[in-house]
This record gives sequence, structure tokens and C-alpha cells, in this order.
Amino acid sequence: MISIIIVSHSKNLADEVIKLCDEMKKFPFPLINGSGIDGEHFGSNPLTIKECIENNYSDDGIIIIADIGSSILNSELAIEMLEEQYNKNKIKIADTPLVEGAIVAVGINDGNTTLEELLEELKDVKNFQK
Amino acid sequence: MISIIIVSHSKNLADEVIKLCDEMKKFPFPLINGSGIDGEHFGSNPLTIKECIENNYSDDGIIIIADIGSSILNSELAIEMLEEQYNKNKIKIADTPLVEGAIVAVGINDGNTTLEELLEELKDVKNFQK
Repeated sequence: MISIIIVSHSKNLADEVIKLCDEMKKFPFPLINGSGIDGEHFGSNPLTIKECIENNYSDDGIIIIADIGSSILNSELAIEMLEEQYNKNKIKIADTPLVEGAIVAVGINDGNTTLEELLEELKDVKNFQK
Repeated sequence: MISIIIVSHSKNLADEVIKLCDEMKKFPFPLINGSGIDGEHFGSNPLTIKECIENNYSDDGIIIIADIGSSILNSELAIEMLEEQYNKNKIKIADTPLVEGAIVAVGINDGNTTLEELLEELKDVKNFQK
């Protein structure tokens, strides 16, 4: 089962993305909030993201959907910091917009789709014309 | 002064986008929540969006940043429903991701940037590689 971790500059924003997407889920996979730092400020913490990865790791893989800038850098850091027992190739940052990607992911992640297929579909979300 | 209206399937999500972006604003332009429908369900209402446009209209223009699907369709409907006194060509739905586009917009919308320039920069956000 592929898990998805949401990493935004705002923990509350990520919470709301997850609430919206949970409503649209067709299959009960873990959709987790990896956002936020201690205190009231905006940002993310690679250690928080690393813990989310460790707690939800399976060989099916994990996809991180992050918003912008440091959310992506901290996600990369989190993956780098993982110990050997985790296969880093199974943990991917999706090249997809945060909200739109998360909405599409819950429509696709049905327990059969592979990590590679899901990443490909998420990348296509960038081409949606508004 | 260009106003920006956020239209998401989730009013709370849009609120959190606005809180995050208000923190990053360099210039005090109106950043408004045009999301939500009556009751507890997710969605948007063209009449709500239309009212946001009317209340924040100026000849500098309005940019709508919407998430996906019906958020975009309802924004289009809202623009179509406007009366003659509003120049519809000055109200544009940005071809940009919701959160990432909104974050970039508050960094650029400084009171001097034109509607066309801002839309162009927002379109470029789609090409950010994650």
C-alpha cells in the first residue's frame, strides 16, 4: 500500500488538504501530514518528515507531495537522513502541485497502482489547463 | 491594485492558503476567499465568486486562483454572469497551481505589476520542477 505524505509550509493548510482528500478517497491508504515546525511559524522540519516516512514505510513506497521551496528541500533532506533499512528509491517527491496532485492521487491510489504509475499520473497534473 | 480571489473545493483550505500568503505579502492587496457552499459539503458557488469579484473590482483587474474541476467551472460561470459595468477581460482565471501560485503571486503583486505580467509569471509556476 502506497502512503502519501503532505508537506506544506503550513501545517493547518496540509490538514485541510487531507480533510478534503479523505472525503474523496476510494481506498483507505495512509495520507499523513508531514508539515510544520515547533511554534507558530510557517515551515517544515526534515526530522518530522523523516519520522512520517519511518512510521509509514512499506516496500510499495511512499510519495511526498510538497508545496514549494524549503518544503521540497526538507523532504529531500529527510530522505537522505534515512537509515539503511529503508529503501530510498521507494520514497519519491512527486513533481505535482500540492492540492491538485493530492486530489488526483486519492482518485488513483487504489491499492493496485504502482509507485511509478502514480508518479507518472501526478506529473501529468502539471499539464492541466485552467 | 490587482485583487486575488482563491477558489478551492474547501473553504477552510482556502482560508489557510490566505493566512500563509498574508504572512508573505509585500504589498497590501486584497486576497479573498471565494470558496465554499452552504452547509458542510465541499464545493464552490458561482454566486459567491461573483460577489467577491463585484466587491473587489477595479480596472487593474482581478485574478482568480482555483484548484481543480468545478472550482474552475464555477469561476468561469461567475465571470459570465457579471453585468455590463464590469469589464470581463480584466478578470482572469490564472493557469497556475493553487498553493504554489498563490505564494508566488504575493511575492510579485506589488502594486506596479500588470495583470498580464502577473498571469505570465503565474503560468511559469507550472514549470517548477520538484
